[in-house]
Parts: sequence; structure tokens; C-alpha cells
Amino acid sequence: MGNSESVVTPWEVRGEVDYRELIERFGVEPLTERIVNRLKVHAGGLHLLLRRGMFFAHREFDEWMDSYERGVKVILYTGRGPSGNTHLGHLIPWLFTKYLQDTFKCELYFQVTDDEKFLFNPELTTEQVAEFTKENLLDIIAVGFDPERTKIFTNLSYSKPLYNMAVRVAKHVTFSTAKATFGFSESSNIGMIFFPAMQAAPCFIHQYLKSEDAHVLIPCAIDQEPYWRISRDVAPKMGYRKPAGIYSKFIPGLGSGGKMSASLPDTAIFLSDTTKEATRKVKNAFTGGQPTIREQKEKGGNPDVCVVYSYLYSLFDEDDKAVSETYESCKGGGLVCGDCKERLAEKVGKFLEEHRRRREAARETVNKYLLRE
Amino acid sequence: MGNSESVVTPWEVRGEVDYRELIERFGVEPLTERIVNRLKVHAGGLHLLLRRGMFFAHREFDEWMDSYERGVKVILYTGRGPSGNTHLGHLIPWLFTKYLQDTFKCELYFQVTDDEKFLFNPELTTEQVAEFTKENLLDIIAVGFDPERTKIFTNLSYSKPLYNMAVRVAKHVTFSTAKATFGFSESSNIGMIFFPAMQAAPCFIHQYLKSEDAHVLIPCAIDQEPYWRISRDVAPKMGYRKPAGIYSKFIPGLGSGGKMSASLPDTAIFLSDTTKEATRKVKNAFTGGQPTIREQKEKGGNPDVCVVYSYLYSLFDEDDKAVSETYESCKGGGLVCGDCKERLAEKVGKFLEEHRRRREAARETVNKYLLRE
Repeated sequence: MGNSESVVTPWEVRGEVDYRELIERFGVEPLTERIVNRLKVHAGGLHLLLRRGMFFAHREFDEWMDSYERGVKVILYTGRGPSGNTHLGHLIPWLFTKYLQDTFKCELYFQVTDDEKFLFNPELTTEQVAEFTKENLLDIIAVGFDPERTKIFTNLSYSKPLYNMAVRVAKHVTFSTAKATFGFSESSNIGMIFFPAMQAAPCFIHQYLKSEDAHVLIPCAIDQEPYWRISRDVAPKMGYRKPAGIYSKFIPGLGSGGKMSASLPDTAIFLSDTTKEATRKVKNAFTGGQPTIREQKEKGGNPDVCVVYSYLYSLFDEDDKAVSETYESCKGGGLVCGDCKERLAEKVGKFLEEHRRRREAARETVNKYLLRE
Repeated sequence: MGNSESVVTPWEVRGEVDYRELIERFGVEPLTERIVNRLKVHAGGLHLLLRRGMFFAHREFDEWMDSYERGVKVILYTGRGPSGNTHLGHLIPWLFTKYLQDTFKCELYFQVTDDEKFLFNPELTTEQVAEFTKENLLDIIAVGFDPERTKIFTNLSYSKPLYNMAVRVAKHVTFSTAKATFGFSESSNIGMIFFPAMQAAPCFIHQYLKSEDAHVLIPCAIDQEPYWRISRDVAPKMGYRKPAGIYSKFIPGLGSGGKMSASLPDTAIFLSDTTKEATRKVKNAFTGGQPTIREQKEKGGNPDVCVVYSYLYSLFDEDDKAVSETYESCKGGGLVCGDCKERLAEKVGKFLEEHRRRREAARETVNKYLLRE
């Protein structure tokens, strides 16, 4: 696929991503229809992100559902690295996690890796990370997680139990393994090298805090998978179940190629964008359209490479029939890019408006969610 | 000096130790008469461990006294790795630290590195380390530190502020530096690699907790010096004063050669030993005596290689004149080893008895000393 070199690590996603190849490289499993249908029975319906294939791979998600059906306690764990403002791409695992929490009525441990962002980015100060953390927390809560079942914590402010657990993980992870998994070098700082233990710790934090058996599922984007390889490797050595995982694709940026990235602000829709800003970005998005309206009507567009179509498909248009019609109509020349952009801009605007409302409400409830020692 | 290879690291001391050579290797300064006399003015007298040269080297101890005289806040920091029962060798930096605290009426931060012992020793469980920690705490408090000015903490139980500070330190320490300083390898676990940041963190914890400038002095045995090299290296990058240090020699084991080591229990006097056990160990100690009493009387003994004499000299006989007489009398054949052993055993017995009394009393006061979040 493509000529550009493809890099997918927990810190960097670059080049064209071949999800089939990633499944092989990471040794994870594709989400089969059988598994998805099993989830559907529990949920009473399928989340858009499943129907449209944004969640595409997993690790023992079926065994995690086995645990649920057999009465083993099931737990969710996901997180956020607070390196800046939140954008739509960050939301994907959270929206899906909320769906799983609603379905299985289970506890969610949500880790905010303030230490990671400080350690990995030479420019960032702890004060900046603290500010991002404060703002990001509101976005997380705005997603609507169950306040009775959701425990949010940051590594720096919840470090007593976390560091205790991370030290136990660390004892089983050699530098050699960490280097092979994450590509550390002589110039990596010693905090970075330790960090995978802090990231693995929440896989076991519920069991540690409550002294009970539990089976953890981690919904996240596929680039985070190396951490769970480490976690799965140490779990039996520590007497815990291996955590299961369910992995999403990346939402593309609004430009041509690459995932949505906060470092390219014109091609990312931030949750803090005004409706006007978001509309401007959508209007400038890369599409599969022809250079002129006349050519578009004659030759038709190419929805397969169109970012606007992919947003409607993956995230903003729940209506399978409407999406399918959009696809055909575009190919047949019955739609011009302006139409789709307008439709998407309206949906994005509504989404952001609703998010802003929830975000303001979150200022009142944030303490209900925070794990403190 | 000697043929056996000399190894001095924070985790291992092996072979004959040449303290002059260590001063060069570590790049520290010898404790000159000028500096010692300056301390004497403040203290009103010299501690035995200074008079007998057990504390022999330092790093900017004179500048630390400058700070004190100029009204800069001065702080002490020392610690303990809870890997087993405490023995006499462990006491040396603590006794000296108490003398400094009494002299300068300053706060002492006392770190118990429970994470270190767990990470570095593959055999130890967290439960075992917790048990050693509990017992060691009583020995520490029995030394008699000022409860109003002493803050004891363990890395695992006080990890919120410590991990916060350690992460800031870690950002400035590359794997390459840590490897060169401590000899880490591919098979070191990632917790060990991070640990120097946890050990450096207390150099800055007072400044962090109180938001005030302070000059820290670290009294410890010379093998811990590599940690302070790292700490001094990062201090200015973090906007703090470089910590000063004052370094002791090792107390020898009761056998021939090597420092007192908990892993050789017959040649170590543990603070938990009964008077009877301690007496037995002293009676079996290596001395500079001749094989028979007759030869001893004819040729005289050699106090320079005698462990019993070195204990009296360094730790148990405050009376300079008596010690000097012992030395001469031994050389002249006027003393037999049994005499010295009896004298030492009696002093050790009294010391342990007094320690046991203080240790029991410490059960009541331990919470006054412990830093909690």
C-alpha cells in the first residue's frame, strides 16, 4: 500500500496505514462477524463505530465476553495523553468505551498519562501538562461515562497505588524487552524507559485496590497495542488475568493522508473549535471530487478517498441507507462536494455544540469521577 | 593496595577498599582539618566518627556550612534500603546525621527505599520488604532524631510527591548516563533503570513541598556517592542548589576483610542480636593477635589489622587517651586479645541494650516521624 514508509508506534503514526498488515505485525485478531454479533446480543444493537469498521481488531474480546457471561467481574480501561487540546480522533475510543460501559454496566478505569507527555516531549513543562489535563478532563467527562462506575486518575496525582503497581510490573520487564518493543535508545531518558510500567499498571489496579479477580478490556486505537503486549506478558507472572483489547483505526485528518493529528491544527477538528472554525475546516477538507462541478457531474466523484465521506461514514451519519445513497450518488455524479461538506459541517457543528454543553456541565461533576488516594 | 579486585557501587562493596583512591575515582574532597574545625565551632565538640576518621570525604560540606551561616535554610537527607535486619554498619551515617541535626537544628528527610530493594533483589517480595521496612523504622527512630524536625518516608508509600519529583529528575537523565554511572545492562529491569531518579528526588523534596530555597547535605557511606553525582548534575537544570555530601568509610565485618554485610550474619552485629549473640560474635572476631598468649606477650599484637581494635577506635571508645593506650599496649605485648574482646563485648552489649530500649519506645512515636501524603 502506497510508497510512504508506514510508522505506527504509541507516539507516532506516519505514512499510509495498512490495517491488515498491522493485524499481522501486532499479532492481534480481526473483529469477525461472529464476535460482533455476539456483542450485538448484549448491546441490543451495534455501535456506529462497529458497523462502519472503525473498531476492526481485538485481543481476546470474545474471552472477555465469556468472563462476563460466566459472572467474572469485567472491567474497562482506556486513557488519554494530555499533550494538547482534544480533537475528534481522540474521542473515538471514548465513545466506544461508553457504549461498552452502558452495555456491560461495568467499571471503567480511565488513565490520564500526564507523566508520559512530560517525559516524552522535551518542550512541555509540568505546568503546561497540568493545564491540558484540567481541560482534557472536561472533554472526557462530557462523553457521558457513568459517574458511579467511572474512575479517572492522572499518573502524577494518583501515584501511590499506581507507582506501587508499576514497580511490580517493572520487575518483570527488562530493558532489552522495552527496547525491542518501543525502540528506546541510549538517549532516551530513564523516565521514558520506566513509563511502560506506569501504562501497564492500570490493567491490574482494580484487582489491587479491591483484592478481587477481574477481567480487563482495553478499547483504544491500534497504535497503543505494544503496551498491552507488555501487560499481557507480565500478567500471569503477577497472578492476574491477561487484559483483553479491542482496537480502532485512526480517523483521518482533513487533509490528504495521515491520521488526525493535533500537530496539524488546520486538518484536525478540536473539541474546542467554534462551529465557525469547524465549518471552515470542513469546507477546506480534501475530497474525492473532480476539479470542476461540470466534471463532477460527468465523471462522478471518488468517495473511497474522500475524507468528508469517511467522516460521514465512520462517525457522523448513523443512517446506513443514507450513507450508502451518498456513496452511490457521489460516484454517479449526482452530488457535488459542497453538498457533502455542508451536510458534514452541520453535523459536526451540532456535535460540537452538544459537546460544549456537556463540557460546561462537567465542571460541576469532575470530582465525582476522580480517583484520589 | 591488596590483590583482590576492589568493587564499590551503591549495591556492592567487595575487596579491599582504598579510600584515597575512592576520593579520586568519585571526584570527592577529603575532609580537611580546616573543615572539621569549622564544624567543631558550631557543634561545640567533634563527634567520635570525625575524630576517628570514619567520615573522611565530602562534597561542598563547607559551602553547606556557608549557607547555614548566611541564613540559607539547610536540610539533611539520608536513608536506608530495607533489605533485612539492621546492623552496626548501617547505624554509622544515622548516628552522624543525628549529630548534625542536633548541631544545626535542621530538618532531616529520611528515605526508606523499599522499591529499590524489591526491584534489585529478584528473591524479595513486596510483603517481605514491607516487613523489613516496619522493623527498620523502629531502628531508625531509636537513634533519637528530633521528632519535630525529622520526616521519614518510604518510596512506595509516599509516592505521590516523590514520583512527581522523580519524573522531573528522570527527564534530565539519559539511559546512557545511567548506564555509565551504575553499570545497567540489557537485562536490568526498567524499574532499576528509573530508580536513580527516585533516589535523587529527596534532594529537592523540601523545596518542592515548601516552595522555598534550601541547601541539602547528605551524610552517607561513600558507596552511595554515584546517586549524588546524578542529583548534582540535574539540580541546576531544575533550578535547585546542588546537594552537598559528607561521606563515611565502611565499618569492617568481624571476619578478616570486607565491610560489615548482612549477607554474612556471623561477622555482622545486628541491632536485633541479643547480648549473648553479640558477645559470641565479638569473641570470634578476627584480631591482630599472635597465635598464642606467650607469643603475644613476646612479640606484641598488630592493632592496625585488628577488627576489635577498629571497633573500639571508630565507634565504641570515646576516650582518645584510652584508645591510644590500647594501641600501644597491644603493640608492646601488654594486652591479650581476650582482654580487648571482653571490653568491646561489654560496650557492644550496653549499646544494644540501650538501642533495644529506644526501639521499643519507638513503637509509640513512629507516626510522628512518618511523612504521609
